[in-house]
Amino acid sequence: MKILIDAYGADNAPQCILDGIELALRGKRKHSLVVVGKESQLKPLLQQRGLNDVAVIDAPDIITNDDSPTEAIRKKSDSSMVVALRTLKERDDCGAVISCGSSGALLTGAFMIVGRIKGVSRPAMAPVLPTVDGGKVVLIDCGANTDCKPLNLLHFAQMGNAYVKGVFGIKSPRIGLLSNGTEEHKGSALNKEVYPLLQQSGLNFIGNLEARDLLFGKADVVVTDGYNGNIALKSIEGMAGAIFTLLKKGIADGGIKEKAGALLLKPVMKGLKDKMDYNKVGGAPFLGVEKPVIKAHGSSAGSAIAAAIEQAEAMIDGEVTQRIKSSYADL
Amino acid sequence: MKILIDAYGADNAPQCILDGIELALRGKRKHSLVVVGKESQLKPLLQQRGLNDVAVIDAPDIITNDDSPTEAIRKKSDSSMVVALRTLKERDDCGAVISCGSSGALLTGAFMIVGRIKGVSRPAMAPVLPTVDGGKVVLIDCGANTDCKPLNLLHFAQMGNAYVKGVFGIKSPRIGLLSNGTEEHKGSALNKEVYPLLQQSGLNFIGNLEARDLLFGKADVVVTDGYNGNIALKSIEGMAGAIFTLLKKGIADGGIKEKAGALLLKPVMKGLKDKMDYNKVGGAPFLGVEKPVIKAHGSSAGSAIAAAIEQAEAMIDGEVTQRIKSSYADL
Repeated sequence: MKILIDAYGADNAPQCILDGIELALRGKRKHSLVVVGKESQLKPLLQQRGLNDVAVIDAPDIITNDDSPTEAIRKKSDSSMVVALRTLKERDDCGAVISCGSSGALLTGAFMIVGRIKGVSRPAMAPVLPTVDGGKVVLIDCGANTDCKPLNLLHFAQMGNAYVKGVFGIKSPRIGLLSNGTEEHKGSALNKEVYPLLQQSGLNFIGNLEARDLLFGKADVVVTDGYNGNIALKSIEGMAGAIFTLLKKGIADGGIKEKAGALLLKPVMKGLKDKMDYNKVGGAPFLGVEKPVIKAHGSSAGSAIAAAIEQAEAMIDGEVTQRIKSSYADL
Repeated sequence: MKILIDAYGADNAPQCILDGIELALRGKRKHSLVVVGKESQLKPLLQQRGLNDVAVIDAPDIITNDDSPTEAIRKKSDSSMVVALRTLKERDDCGAVISCGSSGALLTGAFMIVGRIKGVSRPAMAPVLPTVDGGKVVLIDCGANTDCKPLNLLHFAQMGNAYVKGVFGIKSPRIGLLSNGTEEHKGSALNKEVYPLLQQSGLNFIGNLEARDLLFGKADVVVTDGYNGNIALKSIEGMAGAIFTLLKKGIADGGIKEKAGALLLKPVMKGLKDKMDYNKVGGAPFLGVEKPVIKAHGSSAGSAIAAAIEQAEAMIDGEVTQRIKSSYADL
């Protein structure tokens, strides 16, 4: 299978995208990589890096964050993002798209061009977060659907379940419902309607899960609407930023003792940052469309692109979209 | 004025409560402190500590977290919490209640016994969080009201505004609306209805604020419903817990270098923890009731109780409830 990679959309694209491809190609790859973008620019850059095996699909235009998502997808038909998605849709030998471009445009494009899986009420963004115990948790939805109906959340649970089964090989993923308390009666009006649906879903539903426990390995999939998922994810990001900002300041304001301490602890700090950096786990897959589409972070370093490439391979090999389809065929 | 302190409800009450009182009394106090609980137990403990000036109001019963909130408030009329709230309601020389007991019971009791301020659609929990720049932000609501109407959030904004004016002396508090993006069109259906209300409120409304920016001093008050406020607060707590757990593990798994580094960095780490610990800023005031009621954390150390006592004084001196009342009289 071919994995199509949008060459633009990241802060220092296309170089960081090519960094990621180069990094990914240091390991053995089961699938081949194709870059989508300005051929005249990309070909020489690939040659400079000795990446002559990486094919290029020409797409002269670029979608930016300033473009309106729907308009960009409709009108910029020669953009790298649209060409990548269209190629994914049309060609049987293409297995996934990775893009760092505008989330809104990518979601719209995935929906309009690649198409929704029949039976899925709403596709959803499902970032994978590393947990304290060395595991991972899928938080679904995390921004695609701001206001949701109970059925949408049931579908998110089923799609998250399929992802975890296919990609992590977990037989019976533990599904939690994000809530403001663990007791069954806790939660928003939406939660209270979703709870019995999850109980009757045949999934391994473990009940409500507090945001405090999200990163502690208590569930494999945590279900919420896109608005709350965003609040949780951004709160986590914010706290991490706050802690590291204050830590840096404390060291800078300190004396020689503090600076020596920081130097000695550097490897531990680096390990900690790497462990909690969800970009290192890959991008956020957009589940519920006909083929895997992965949103990588806009400020992605090469390592994040390489992680997204591994993730795309795992989604293809783990047959995530087929699993989602068959879970709807069963209904 | 007298500040009434519930002697029970914390994990190691009444000792930690008395620790807090002792700590608070090391500084100059404008208001006097009264403990509410089993007189026969408390009197000797106060005497042992030489705290002979601290009065006791006898209340033989205790409300626990296992009690149903409404039932406990109705039936346990001799409990320390109910007696404290009733005394606050009845006596003009009492200015505030502090309790570490069950949040649900305290909210119910504050509402049923102390009473809602006329015009306030829903009282709300408003914890004060320390920010990276050394400031503070009030997150309102944070758990009292799971599902909200637009008018409720407008009232939360007005009450948060009154708190920040009265307690921090900020003339024109910056009010932000928690959302999944900063642009005006972002947000849940509820947000979109609240946005114009805040624009027309006469408050210093600065627009949407992402959860990522909550701790970075961009607003003085951040408005949200109790469900989302809980998700944000607990996500922050969870990430802090995750980082410190992994840091400890990294140090424990490391060699002598890492252990020496940890030792040298100990003061910085302690400073960091203290700075980000919102219990050190005080408890969560319950705004919108006739007199200040403050929920202190259930696992409160003496320092948190002392902080809540300072906060109660600041709320009395800053005339927070009067400010809230007059903002409704203006409407």
